[in-house]
Amino acid sequence: MDSFLPFQSPWEDSTSVGDEMLALIEELFPLPRSITGDGLRQTLARLQELIPVEIHEVATGTQVFDWTIPKEWKIHGACIEDRDGNRIVDFCENNLHVVGYSRPVDATMTLSDLKEHVHTLPGHPDWIPYRTAYYDENWGFCMSHRQLESLADQEYRVRIDSELFDGSLTYAEFVSEGQEDEEILIFTHTCHPSLCNDNLTGIAVAAHMAAALSKTTHRLTYRFVFAPATIGSITWLARNEGILPQVAGGLVLSVIGDGGPLTYKRSRRGHTATDAAAEYVLSQHHGSDRFEDFSPWGYDERQFCSPGINLPVGRLTRTPHGEYPEYHTSADDLSVVNKESLVDSLRAVWQIFSVLEGDLYYINTSPKGEPQLGRRGLYRKIGGYQDVSKSQLAMLWLLNQSDGEHSLLDIAKSARLPYDLVRSVADDLQEANLLVLA
Amino acid sequence: MDSFLPFQSPWEDSTSVGDEMLALIEELFPLPRSITGDGLRQTLARLQELIPVEIHEVATGTQVFDWTIPKEWKIHGACIEDRDGNRIVDFCENNLHVVGYSRPVDATMTLSDLKEHVHTLPGHPDWIPYRTAYYDENWGFCMSHRQLESLADQEYRVRIDSELFDGSLTYAEFVSEGQEDEEILIFTHTCHPSLCNDNLTGIAVAAHMAAALSKTTHRLTYRFVFAPATIGSITWLARNEGILPQVAGGLVLSVIGDGGPLTYKRSRRGHTATDAAAEYVLSQHHGSDRFEDFSPWGYDERQFCSPGINLPVGRLTRTPHGEYPEYHTSADDLSVVNKESLVDSLRAVWQIFSVLEGDLYYINTSPKGEPQLGRRGLYRKIGGYQDVSKSQLAMLWLLNQSDGEHSLLDIAKSARLPYDLVRSVADDLQEANLLVLA
Amino acid sequence: MDSFLPFQSPWEDSTSVGDEMLALIEELFPLPRSITGDGLRQTLARLQELIPVEIHEVATGTQVFDWTIPKEWKIHGACIEDRDGNRIVDFCENNLHVVGYSRPVDATMTLSDLKEHVHTLPGHPDWIPYRTAYYDENWGFCMSHRQLESLADQEYRVRIDSELFDGSLTYAEFVSEGQEDEEILIFTHTCHPSLCNDNLTGIAVAAHMAAALSKTTHRLTYRFVFAPATIGSITWLARNEGILPQVAGGLVLSVIGDGGPLTYKRSRRGHTATDAAAEYVLSQHHGSDRFEDFSPWGYDERQFCSPGINLPVGRLTRTPHGEYPEYHTSADDLSVVNKESLVDSLRAVWQIFSVLEGDLYYINTSPKGEPQLGRRGLYRKIGGYQDVSKSQLAMLWLLNQSDGEHSLLDIAKSARLPYDLVRSVADDLQEANLLVLA
Repeated sequence: MDSFLPFQSPWEDSTSVGDEMLALIEELFPLPRSITGDGLRQTLARLQELIPVEIHEVATGTQVFDWTIPKEWKIHGACIEDRDGNRIVDFCENNLHVVGYSRPVDATMTLSDLKEHVHTLPGHPDWIPYRTAYYDENWGFCMSHRQLESLADQEYRVRIDSELFDGSLTYAEFVSEGQEDEEILIFTHTCHPSLCNDNLTGIAVAAHMAAALSKTTHRLTYRFVFAPATIGSITWLARNEGILPQVAGGLVLSVIGDGGPLTYKRSRRGHTATDAAAEYVLSQHHGSDRFEDFSPWGYDERQFCSPGINLPVGRLTRTPHGEYPEYHTSADDLSVVNKESLVDSLRAVWQIFSVLEGDLYYINTSPKGEPQLGRRGLYRKIGGYQDVSKSQLAMLWLLNQSDGEHSLLDIAKSARLPYDLVRSVADDLQEANLLVLA
Repeated sequence: MDSFLPFQSPWEDSTSVGDEMLALIEELFPLPRSITGDGLRQTLARLQELIPVEIHEVATGTQVFDWTIPKEWKIHGACIEDRDGNRIVDFCENNLHVVGYSRPVDATMTLSDLKEHVHTLPGHPDWIPYRTAYYDENWGFCMSHRQLESLADQEYRVRIDSELFDGSLTYAEFVSEGQEDEEILIFTHTCHPSLCNDNLTGIAVAAHMAAALSKTTHRLTYRFVFAPATIGSITWLARNEGILPQVAGGLVLSVIGDGGPLTYKRSRRGHTATDAAAEYVLSQHHGSDRFEDFSPWGYDERQFCSPGINLPVGRLTRTPHGEYPEYHTSADDLSVVNKESLVDSLRAVWQIFSVLEGDLYYINTSPKGEPQLGRRGLYRKIGGYQDVSKSQLAMLWLLNQSDGEHSLLDIAKSARLPYDLVRSVADDLQEANLLVLA
Repeated sequence: MDSFLPFQSPWEDSTSVGDEMLALIEELFPLPRSITGDGLRQTLARLQELIPVEIHEVATGTQVFDWTIPKEWKIHGACIEDRDGNRIVDFCENNLHVVGYSRPVDATMTLSDLKEHVHTLPGHPDWIPYRTAYYDENWGFCMSHRQLESLADQEYRVRIDSELFDGSLTYAEFVSEGQEDEEILIFTHTCHPSLCNDNLTGIAVAAHMAAALSKTTHRLTYRFVFAPATIGSITWLARNEGILPQVAGGLVLSVIGDGGPLTYKRSRRGHTATDAAAEYVLSQHHGSDRFEDFSPWGYDERQFCSPGINLPVGRLTRTPHGEYPEYHTSADDLSVVNKESLVDSLRAVWQIFSVLEGDLYYINTSPKGEPQLGRRGLYRKIGGYQDVSKSQLAMLWLLNQSDGEHSLLDIAKSARLPYDLVRSVADDLQEANLLVLA
């Protein structure tokens, strides 16, 4: 018989994993990540201490579907100096200060000309925005609006010491082999610099989930991909088209450490096993009713759910991107995330995968009338009681609905019984040869 | 043309049938029924005075699907005597005092040991529970909790003078032949001893319905089965597999004489003609909105709706088993049932069958534009009035929807018109050759 | 590429078309229309001044499906005179005074006998009802109830100078050819005499819509039929069966000038492109939630949606027939209709047709992952902003959903974006070769 991932996660009685995730996030926070480059490489190398991820480098210029791997971006430093040589903005202080993929520049210009290249958030005057210009020949700085307003009307020297060169795009992959080839795909984006909820939380939850799975027997194969957003998922898809038919489910994990409730966004197909499992776990075990239909805006589910790919992959977040004010600003720092939310997210992922493992279809081998359960020791001995225990109800539901058309989760939902009870009773009935896999 | 059972039942203007059902229930109440034995035989023999039921005996040891017909149980008497020879419990006083299928016993034992074999209802201290142990080698007594608590701590002599022997299981069948071979199956369980609502009411309603059908012309064939619960329905199914393809609908009738509203539990298929007819009749003519989806807990619908049988059979009750406090106790006596509820249930069964008889699919023979009804005398002569009578509306709906895809009940529901009006107008249109059976 | 009718109608900034429609209604009001005859011919001739309609005459006795073209009815005059020769009722004063298709009569009779042939509305004692008796050998007068009650009990001379003779039934047709043969059918009934909302409003809106279409390039072909109710639509259907497979949608237009909200009655099929377009336009652009499922009572949708015809044709009205008190009485005069409602109806028809023109299915030519929009100049250059403009969202939705299974209106509804925006962005994507027609 298959060894399903148990429904109870290894973290039920302990929150030390929460401390570990927070520590990992703290350590990774300062690294200057982008869609290519050394900050990204350092981040993935750190993950190798937790799990033996395989690092892939894809050369600049490689065609990936409709896209081309861009030049690699390296930045040595950047600053704005006033007339008196004071560094009023310095990349070393906050890597959000430079627009991602800024071209090199060394020039002196008026405040008015400088402003053409400066991004601020007037609505949040103390926060620095996060901006990128991957595919545009441009450069820019980000700063707080308050700082911009305080600048005297004089000339400024601006320097960005960056390079764009033929290098590679880096991503990491980890596979926890199961008893079957069917795969669950977990994707988390790794390209954001010093932003915390988006998406060091996704990286931390994915890495710890991978570590836990690698220590457990499980039926399905789990493939974790740590890669830049958009170009990273497109690159992985283009290089792994042969694997896609084996992908039976999956999750994009991102923005998963804040205090909001868990939020699940359905796959494009909308009624897959992953969708059902996530809806069950979130509503029954995490008190959430935040479910969204697929839409082509968001994170890498956009690529996995493009019409020519159309994988059964949903997205798990807490407060989705753009719905919390600190999103894509310097305020998305460690204060936005908390240990309890990270652990709760990690448990939810485990439980979703546990349901996916065991949510199978069975056939009742004695389908004409009910089988005589008493004779098999499967039924209470004294008849006529007014109440029936939940496990006995689960037995009757399983026997009645196991015609190959209803999965265990379908049956649990019809019966309004817990999935793990139904899974466990199905094991008993399979042992008694009353159920066989469909 | 077919002779459909009219929608109006023969009992619209009289309640003498209510008195007859109550008298039958009263007469059958004291008989010591079980899943086999003479109490059951006497019950079925009494029904033969009303309708010519055929009695079937199925020998002990016969295999019926996953089950085996058990030994027959005969009980001559049973009592508990105190140290002074006082009979404190006597089977002659109430046949609920002995657990059904108790093995013989004659022993003296302490109160403490006796209590291991005594069942009571602490929550209803004056009521005797109903318990059985058909497939268990055991014995036991049932008594009121008040009585158990009053027992002195002394030795008691317990005697159950019972036998278990190779005999047979008894059930009865009655068929009212219709113009067609398609059958409606009515099942009611006959194994409960001195309990009234459960299920002398089902027996009384089924018997009187059978008697009424046998005096009327009808299109469908009606098969009534009076048999023990579970083992009885399984036995009937195992011996009649050849008939099952002809079963076009049916009802399990039980617990149908109390003051609660009629309650219909859908077949496992959930959208059969019986389901539609029952929902229509209960909601439109009996003010009930009590409809339940199928679940594998309840009465013999569990067998008829097992996955390998899956008949289009629902269940009609008033307050379902387990939802009224007197259920399966000595308090389920004549005081729980009333004449008006019995007659209301009987009428509902008739109306459901009437709908099943006539709920057919037709084809409009003049489907291009509306046919000219005026020329055929089918339409009012002066046009332009603001109101249209209901029968004219029924005519237009029937002509428009009769494409072989909509039954008369479907059309009645779309048109929000009474089914019997639609049925009657369909007769007119068939006579005018504007409709033919699909 | 196709030239779709633009969503914006030619009447957005001007209401002169309202004045023109009112003037047409006023001019047509006095004509004594019926299902045949010169009043009908004069009406259709007047339309020829607006659009080159083709007039068809179908001879008395012609078989049309289940019906026969009736004799033509001509009325020269009719009156009731009292003993003193006073004309108390005169057809010249109001053509509702005579029941349509009254046979000739010239007789003197008592008030009591006369009353057998007089129709009034006791609930609206000042209004004259509208009555017809096309297929009945009868005659009758209509008058106000107040007038009937004032009549002295004396003898009256009644005269109806009418003829019934072998003539013809007249209808008109106008086709505005599109780039494709697929047709939209617009039907409006022309048989009511001096009634205004029912249906000079339908005639006016249809005629002006036809005139506007004939001056515009459009993809679909539009066929307008102006004909008597019931016998007219049946006649057109019987003579044009060969065209029906080309009918991809359509509207029956009637009772469309009063102050009530627009009301759409779905086709019998219920989910056609016309149904979707009308629901979208009324709910999103005309603040209406008045949608009715098909029922076989109403206007000529009864014929177009008979089971053997079953065209995807719905009905657009404002307050439906029978739901306003003046319906089919002399009070349905010019005071019931207003210019704003007429223009609003005309615009809605235009918008519905515009949606039908462009609501096509496309295929994404770069379906694996998202195509790189930036490279094609289709995407904003600076990434990372929190908001995305509606047109960019429309682009993503179109690319994601264009798999040949979702029409542009489906996509607009899923995306909650305006249809005309989605239509316009689809043009851009088609131009960029990212979308092709499915």
